[in-house]
Amino acid sequence: MIRIAICAPACPISHEDAARVADLARGWPGIELTVHPQCFASEGHFAGPDAARLAALVECANDPAFDAVWFARGGYGSNRIAQAALAAFDHRAQDKAFLGYSDMGYLLGGLYRERIGRPVHAPMPADIRRTGGSTAIARVFDWLTGNGAGLEPSLDDRPTVALNLTTLAMLAGTPLMPGLAGHVVQVEEVSEHLYAVDRLFFHATAHLGGIAGLRLGRVSDVPDNDRPFGSDAAQIARDWCDRHAIAFLGGADIGHDADNRIVPFGLVRGFRQP
Amino acid sequence: MIRIAICAPACPISHEDAARVADLARGWPGIELTVHPQCFASEGHFAGPDAARLAALVECANDPAFDAVWFARGGYGSNRIAQAALAAFDHRAQDKAFLGYSDMGYLLGGLYRERIGRPVHAPMPADIRRTGGSTAIARVFDWLTGNGAGLEPSLDDRPTVALNLTTLAMLAGTPLMPGLAGHVVQVEEVSEHLYAVDRLFFHATAHLGGIAGLRLGRVSDVPDNDRPFGSDAAQIARDWCDRHAIAFLGGADIGHDADNRIVPFGLVRGFRQP
Repeated sequence: MIRIAICAPACPISHEDAARVADLARGWPGIELTVHPQCFASEGHFAGPDAARLAALVECANDPAFDAVWFARGGYGSNRIAQAALAAFDHRAQDKAFLGYSDMGYLLGGLYRERIGRPVHAPMPADIRRTGGSTAIARVFDWLTGNGAGLEPSLDDRPTVALNLTTLAMLAGTPLMPGLAGHVVQVEEVSEHLYAVDRLFFHATAHLGGIAGLRLGRVSDVPDNDRPFGSDAAQIARDWCDRHAIAFLGGADIGHDADNRIVPFGLVRGFRQP
Repeated sequence: MIRIAICAPACPISHEDAARVADLARGWPGIELTVHPQCFASEGHFAGPDAARLAALVECANDPAFDAVWFARGGYGSNRIAQAALAAFDHRAQDKAFLGYSDMGYLLGGLYRERIGRPVHAPMPADIRRTGGSTAIARVFDWLTGNGAGLEPSLDDRPTVALNLTTLAMLAGTPLMPGLAGHVVQVEEVSEHLYAVDRLFFHATAHLGGIAGLRLGRVSDVPDNDRPFGSDAAQIARDWCDRHAIAFLGGADIGHDADNRIVPFGLVRGFRQP
């Protein structure tokens, strides 16, 4: 039995969405879900104040009754509590998987830096709202129960991480930023103008010296600007990789969509694998 | 006579706007404007390709016929040519003032880091389009001709810089980032959601250890979000300053508007002052 705790370090989900995910989970007899009530809290932008989100996250991570901590939704806010959370995690967090993406990259990056648990880029409960969202959720249940079909297909014999580009740019130089020397770094973005994508690559690639290479996931929902930027996301990525002598390795099957594949941080691809 | 060269390291201006600024300049007999034709070039997002923007900038900076280089407009793009430009500037750039703000902060920051010329946060020709824009332009002509009435009023006996918050966040950790220990750092922002302002402060303050303190200029044109953020820009700035034990010093009279005051980087407040 894989016992999953769901909490929301950034923004809340609805009771309805949580119920839909719980219904779906019944198709995996090896999965048991526990939704922390903090997932439904709301204060301003966030799923409750920093203290409440931090308490729920630490409670889930340090509770031996759980095998995995699944982040309910991105949005914005996990960076506000990530350092305090990492400092409060104890040995009971060590064997757990921590799953999510987008804003959750602050936590995944920090966990990876501190070598706590198994950070995993993966769909989240809030993805149930997307067209085809149940296939995204199923990918997580499959992976946690030993079926690796949902792994990102380019994963090879090099350690890999997957991060939202904005999150990676904001992580850089902070106490949450993991060392990525020798890593393949996969990035994806959503809802940013191409000039902002170019600016984020300017910043992020200045911090990625020594990586094995960069892969570009989907850059989706790009807003229209008053004029076309003049190059596309792949050209932008290549340009900044070239400027920093970083190998551009091609695409990655990740993004803010239902097709978003699973990328366990590091080298080990399965859960509870020896 | 103060001879000013105008070029556009990021985005273009119109002939009409350049003409309005030139008309206005006739009120200052000590000012002579030369508008580089590159200001009107256009390629995709930018005022011409990187190579053309770089060439015009270096030409203006290294031409002994000019006393000041005035950046025509922000937008986005000076970061793409800033390192190459700094490397190409020679001794003839050394005595010049370089004036602009917003995206031009990449150049101002890099110049300050390399101790080249006099980087100055100041209105730009494109500000002529704003309501009251001629007062913003007049502030620049006044300052260059020895009238310091347009200086930011909080300037004191500590070295100061003024930067757009996004620009500062993107500068951090790159080869353009100046050392700011002991400095008062003034920031302003425009057209960003408050969650993004919070995220930018998370990142920027992680890189501002050792500064004398932070001042907050205007955070304007904040887009509506699907829900209120829960705190305002000043509360956000205070919160992140507190987390990093940075002194929050209050407001600054800078922003993306016609009231935007002048902040010469460092300690010297006048131009051509001994």
